[in-house]
Amino acid sequence: MVRHLEYPKKPQNTVKRYNNRGTYDLGIIHSIINTTSVLHVSFAPSPDEPFPAILPMIGVMGSFEYPSSSIEEPLDCYLHGYVSSRIMRLARESPNGLPICVAATKVDGLVLSLTPNSHSYNYRSAVLQGFAKPVETDDEKLYAMQLITNKVVDGRWENTRVPPDNVEMTSTTILRVKVETGSGKIRQGGPHDEAKDENRSDITERVWTGVVPVYEAFDTPIPSDTNKVKDLPSYLDSYVSETNNHNRESALNAVKEP
Amino acid sequence: MVRHLEYPKKPQNTVKRYNNRGTYDLGIIHSIINTTSVLHVSFAPSPDEPFPAILPMIGVMGSFEYPSSSIEEPLDCYLHGYVSSRIMRLARESPNGLPICVAATKVDGLVLSLTPNSHSYNYRSAVLQGFAKPVETDDEKLYAMQLITNKVVDGRWENTRVPPDNVEMTSTTILRVKVETGSGKIRQGGPHDEAKDENRSDITERVWTGVVPVYEAFDTPIPSDTNKVKDLPSYLDSYVSETNNHNRESALNAVKEP
Repeated sequence: MVRHLEYPKKPQNTVKRYNNRGTYDLGIIHSIINTTSVLHVSFAPSPDEPFPAILPMIGVMGSFEYPSSSIEEPLDCYLHGYVSSRIMRLARESPNGLPICVAATKVDGLVLSLTPNSHSYNYRSAVLQGFAKPVETDDEKLYAMQLITNKVVDGRWENTRVPPDNVEMTSTTILRVKVETGSGKIRQGGPHDEAKDENRSDITERVWTGVVPVYEAFDTPIPSDTNKVKDLPSYLDSYVSETNNHNRESALNAVKEP
Repeated sequence: MVRHLEYPKKPQNTVKRYNNRGTYDLGIIHSIINTTSVLHVSFAPSPDEPFPAILPMIGVMGSFEYPSSSIEEPLDCYLHGYVSSRIMRLARESPNGLPICVAATKVDGLVLSLTPNSHSYNYRSAVLQGFAKPVETDDEKLYAMQLITNKVVDGRWENTRVPPDNVEMTSTTILRVKVETGSGKIRQGGPHDEAKDENRSDITERVWTGVVPVYEAFDTPIPSDTNKVKDLPSYLDSYVSETNNHNRESALNAVKEP
């Protein structure tokens, strides 16, 4: 029997608008986070500051306690990025961790209907809310650094100069987010028009409707001026072509009605 | 003489880490917002709620007061998306508008260096902070709806059934964000390694370094089952191919040192 763990529905994560598109499935939400290049992380900078802040960061789901956990199981979110001293200081100073929100959104298509009002995107989005604290032990930091590097290019960690030296270890900060709630939202399919427009031939004969599939594409890797490795390594070559195929397939599959 | 207006540097928008990558130029920041498919919008849901919320939304810069304003001039940010009643209610109830943060990030490349520590992305990111209020007049709403539709596909508005009818006008909500501060950050170029690794041939002979260009790609548009327009209209065909060329060029240009 396949288990499907779900995040508990609380007021702040319950999908209300188009709630048939909502999901609380851990596996689906974690996969969206793990395949999104840049996560957007929000926090409140200080009590006197009216505006929330958003930082673009790289992040990945993982469990240092139970490294064999699958994507469907409870996981923490590890974040690395242009961590301003502000978010790090706040996370260090909060005894229970800094309350943050992590968002990941992938656009799969432009959905073009007869009238602007019913235009849409095909998309997959995920949001996590939880408490962020800096990772303290070197073992856990190393675990997270490897996950994050291999999220960017699968197998990259093993194919670089590792382990990081002492200076690199102390200059790197990783946040571990203990997830409290999460939700996802997925839209797929073609345009849905209303009868009032579909029944008018003056409109349907003039307005093209359909989907423009959208995906994140990799171009041919360009070696640096100082690169000494003549051929593109096979792990990188495969990663580029497999990711391109996978992303394109996802965008094309999203055109089908769910 | 070319003017370059800049957002004022305040504590909350001053770029500290890698500050040579920071920009406050209105034109650059507005262009990043306008060419990003999905914006991430953050707000504080309520005083008792510890976590900020993030919504993925579609948005565009514009000025209803001075519609002839260019991208380099002071503009508002108009937002449309899966506007939960929560953000709309908060924006309506806040006499000065709801304090929000709007973020846009475009990944231009994976920057692969000798050691994980110096890996990076080429990217362009922009953040705006401001006060959001619902647009109240039909004239301004129509102005913003047209901008937003044509942001998704240039020329789409004129090629659909418009204007929206009364039901569509009242069911659509647009937020206008009066921008208080903004900043951008841009990273381009190849990997930068340290001498401690570059001088070791056991590393340089083994580790491929360079950039994998990344861009958002459109695939061939797929007509809906009910589409009656036989040929893909030229405005859409051009938009798809021009956007693909432009996005790919941007990713390739980003590989060059700034």
